[in-house]
Formats: sequence, C-alpha cells, structure tokens
Amino acid sequence: MNLKQLSLMLELSQTTVSRALNGYPEVSEETRRRVTDAAKRHGYRPNPSARRLATGKAGMIGYVMPTGAAVDIDPHFVEFLSGLGDYARGHELDLVLSPADAQDEETTYRRIVANKQVDALYISAPYNADKRVALAHQLGIPFIVHGRSEGLDFDYPFIDIDNEGAFHDATRLLVQLGHKRVALINGDDTQTFAIFRERGVRRALAESGLVLEPRNIRSVAMTEENGYRAARRLLEGSDAPTAIVCSSLLMALGIVRAARDLNLTMPRDLSLVSHDDVFHWLKPEHFSVPLTTTRSSIRAAGARVAERLAARISGLEDGARGEVWPVDLVVRGSISGVR
Amino acid sequence: MNLKQLSLMLELSQTTVSRALNGYPEVSEETRRRVTDAAKRHGYRPNPSARRLATGKAGMIGYVMPTGAAVDIDPHFVEFLSGLGDYARGHELDLVLSPADAQDEETTYRRIVANKQVDALYISAPYNADKRVALAHQLGIPFIVHGRSEGLDFDYPFIDIDNEGAFHDATRLLVQLGHKRVALINGDDTQTFAIFRERGVRRALAESGLVLEPRNIRSVAMTEENGYRAARRLLEGSDAPTAIVCSSLLMALGIVRAARDLNLTMPRDLSLVSHDDVFHWLKPEHFSVPLTTTRSSIRAAGARVAERLAARISGLEDGARGEVWPVDLVVRGSISGVR
Repeated sequence: MNLKQLSLMLELSQTTVSRALNGYPEVSEETRRRVTDAAKRHGYRPNPSARRLATGKAGMIGYVMPTGAAVDIDPHFVEFLSGLGDYARGHELDLVLSPADAQDEETTYRRIVANKQVDALYISAPYNADKRVALAHQLGIPFIVHGRSEGLDFDYPFIDIDNEGAFHDATRLLVQLGHKRVALINGDDTQTFAIFRERGVRRALAESGLVLEPRNIRSVAMTEENGYRAARRLLEGSDAPTAIVCSSLLMALGIVRAARDLNLTMPRDLSLVSHDDVFHWLKPEHFSVPLTTTRSSIRAAGARVAERLAARISGLEDGARGEVWPVDLVVRGSISGVR
Repeated sequence: MNLKQLSLMLELSQTTVSRALNGYPEVSEETRRRVTDAAKRHGYRPNPSARRLATGKAGMIGYVMPTGAAVDIDPHFVEFLSGLGDYARGHELDLVLSPADAQDEETTYRRIVANKQVDALYISAPYNADKRVALAHQLGIPFIVHGRSEGLDFDYPFIDIDNEGAFHDATRLLVQLGHKRVALINGDDTQTFAIFRERGVRRALAESGLVLEPRNIRSVAMTEENGYRAARRLLEGSDAPTAIVCSSLLMALGIVRAARDLNLTMPRDLSLVSHDDVFHWLKPEHFSVPLTTTRSSIRAAGARVAERLAARISGLEDGARGEVWPVDLVVRGSISGVR
C-alpha cells in the first residue's frame, strides 16, 4: 500500500496523511490516531522522500569535512563523533559528513543548505572571524560552533571549553613552583583554541612579571613528531625552559621522547603539563612519568553539540547562547619545583 | 520558479524535466539541452527531495556506527574516514553515519535501507559469519565489506589486507633471527583481522617446528594501557618471550613502556614488530627504538572502498569480487638476533 492508496481509503488528502504520520501539530489527535492505526493495519511504510517533502525535515545533522592530500584529520575527531553518536542514537538523528575541498568549503556549505540535506550543522576548529560561521549565519540554517570565533559582528550559538583559563591555571601552578622559563608548544595558532591557550599562558606569566619569550612558543600540527622536534629545539638552547605546557597528549609523547634523548629526567630537569581531550587509547596517567593535564572530554562536548542541535531543530532552543565549560587541572608526577 | 512552472513552460511532464536535469538516459540529448538551458535561464534549482523521488539516488554512502557507553571507537576510524572523504569529495558523494545501539545494529540497517537514505553502505571490522554482511546481502543494497568474514554461504564484495601473510612474514623473520619464544599481542580475536593475524603467526612458527603457546597470546582492545599490561604479564614470567608481534602502534607504545619499566633493552632483550595503519600523528620510525612494522595505509583502503561503492552505485561494478592487498614488512631497529 502506498500513500495515495492509504489516503483514498481514509478519504483524506495525501498531505494530511503524511503530516499525521510525522507528528505535525496541525493534525487533530483523532485524525492522527485514525491514520496511524490504518497505516499499521495495512503495513504502510512512509516513503522517506515523500516524508521529507511533507515535513521538510531530513533527520540529519551535517558536518562539512575538509579533505585533500595535505589535510590530516586529528584523532580528536573520532572522539567527538563518538559523543555525537551517543546522543544522536537515542534521537533518530543521523550524521552527514560532506567532504569538501579544504580550499573551498563554501561551495559545499551552500550545496548542503540549498539541498536541504541536513536540518542543522556544526562547525568545528574555528578561526577568528571564521567565514564558515558567517556563512551559516547568513544562510539561516540552525548551527552550533564547537569552539569560538572572535571578530564576528553578530552573536552565534557555541560550545567551548575555557582554554584560556585552563592554560592560565596550569602556567600559574608552574610559576608558583618557581619556574621562570616556561615554554608553550601549541597547535595551529590560527585556530582560536590555540589563541586562547597562548593568552592564558601569557596572562599567568604577566601576573608574576614574567613574559613568554618568542623563542619559547611553538605552533605546530599536533603530532608526536612535531612535539619531539619542538622540544628538541627548545631544550637544546641556552637558558632552556624548565617547564613546558603543550596542547595535546600526542605532542607530549614526543616531548617525553626528546627529554629522554637529551638525558633529562622528568620532572627534575623538566616539568610538563599537557592538555588531555580524554582518549580511551592513550592516558596521561600511564606515561612513564604520569602527566599533569588540563582535562576536558571532547566526547562529552560532541554529545552536548548533538543535544543542542536537536533542540534547535525542534525549536526548543533559539538565540545565540554561548556555553563555556570549565577545565580540570589534574596534577600528577610530571611537575615539580625548580632545582 | 518551481518544477511545475518550468514543466508547464516547456510543455513537458515534471518527470521528464526532473530526469533531464538528473542525467537520466531515457531523455533525448535535445530535450535535455532544452531543459537545462531553461532551468539556467530562469534560475531553477531542483528540490533535492523531488530529485530523489525522480532518480531514486541519494548521493550518499552509509555506515552504521555502533555506539553506547561501553563502545570506544578506534582512532583508525578517522584515518579510514579521511580516505573515504578523499575519494567522495571529487564524486559528489556524502557519507551518512547512522549511530546504532551496538547490541542491535540490525534495526538501524533495516531503517536506512527501508528509508532509501543511502545508495550503498560499507561494513567494517567484520566477525566470522557476520550477521551484518548477511543482512546487507539479504536486503539487496549495494555494499562492500572492509575486511573479510568467513563462514558465510554466499560470496560478497570486500577489500582486505593480507593480515595472515603480514604476520606470517613478520614471525618468520623473527624465527630466522633465532627467536623460539614468540608472543602475539592481538586485537579483539572475535574479529577476523585478528583471527588471520594469529593464523599467520602460528603458520610461521609451525614451519620451523615451533608453537604459539597459549600463555603467549593476548587478545585485548588496542590501547596503550592494554599493550603495557599484556607485555608486563608476558615478560615477567619464566621462559618469557624474546620477541613480540603486536597488532597496533598504540599497543606498541605500551609494550615499549613495559620493557623500559622492566629494564629490558630493545632490541637486545626484546624484539618487537607492530602492525602500522599509517597514522600521520604517530610514526613507528620515531619510537625511541624505531619499530619494525607490517605496514598498510588504512586511509588508502578508505579511498578504495569509496571508489568501489561509487562503481557499484552507478552499475559499473557488480558481483562479489574480493580484493586482498599485500602488506609491506618494513625492517627497522626494534628487532635483532637472540643473544
């Protein structure tokens, strides 16, 4: 039985039947019951394309995924996806990844919005004055930013962690332990998370009359190898830093390897604090010297992004609320006072 | 201008106009030109839901993603996604991740097929006699298995790497170097990749009259911590193995840490070979002792899965062709002869 046959039998229009089956409020309770009973009795399964035409809802959350030979996706992404899935599963939402040329994401954003392929989307790893955020705002599709973008002339909904506060607190603790030469091995500093982290380190140092020397800042893609290289360069110079704050456990692996190669004992010769996104497969407490970390679960953030997107799709949330999560500072053996 | 208006103007049926705009072969070249010219002139943009109704193609590849509090997704997944994206981007394919209850994936498979949400799907990390493969076969949707499932009574299309050959060759090399006590730290051995790897190790040992002792096999989720724990247990016993073959770089990190904690020098006291899926963020050549690996890019596999799915959607590929990729054995400093 198809929609037309079901409609004829019930003496209702196809639109009414379709809306009844999809929970639209315009349909009376009595009609809805009559329609759903008949659909069940006759084994009618709505055609999803017809349903989309009737309701205008795709039941999908979108993400434009930058791709290209030069583009490497961080393993953080999989934890975030897990979190999205944790929420979306219980709410009949699917997730559409639309691969885009990293040099031209705009075309893909316009396509998925024009095609009504998704009901809402999220934007991650934002830059300042992020063009994607401006575009989503202009196109009028519901969206949430995972992270923040400064320098836009409108407000927008986001979820972020307190990157500045986290790196401020970590650095302040190192300063309290007597460290004066603190270095930062950061991620891509055109992204706002890295900008906020650097700001936190600078602010904590400034509060004690110290500065973050230009030679003590490194901004690199967050891999083990880059952590190693950056740490070698920092630690081989004269007046080498006695403490490093870094933006990823993967870089921390490389920093620990560099210290070992240089015969530095941690924490005696080098203190280290790393940010930890909470990977199940690599844990800071299981490093040779357990790592002090600023900790925030990126999986939990993914679940919250899905929850808020669902609320925006159904009209339960609107406006431009920003949400900033505090970050835990977890102290373990990788830091100590200066000798 | 909508489809109806465009059709009236051209004096063609809506179906013909829609098919002309979507490249269907039933429409003559002349009509197609007339329709596309008019659509362009009048700024007509096809409604994607209407287009779906006309063509029956969603332009989407599906993946049912197991989720749940107890489910952790491996970082391998993100590399595979990158590969899918590399191909899909150039071919206007999007990827739909449908989160499913890990205890009941069947419901989700049935839903996405019934809803015609995707044109094809892939199945990853198969088990023997995998129910999902049987279900996809029965439902008649185009699919590719990434990996292999034994014990099904029909053929199906797949892409796999030669896991058995890879672990056979790695073990044979260790035996040639004089190792008699070889251990295997494997992934989840209900999955076929792990079954094939164990088979390879056993076969290589058997060829030299050796056996893989039950106490020298560990099957664990592939995390740093599990690699560490498994290696501690293996190496602390009497008659400890002199060589370990393991299924993931993440476990190798833990094995190296265990060796260090036990004051074992690699490769003098312990030889290690790891499988390497080729992560950009953790490289075997950058371990303290560079690791010998069996290497195969999981990102390349993702791209190939997308390519074959696209071919199956467009009818260029059918049948049940299996494709098995050879695996490189890359020798670095982590192996040596027995003292």
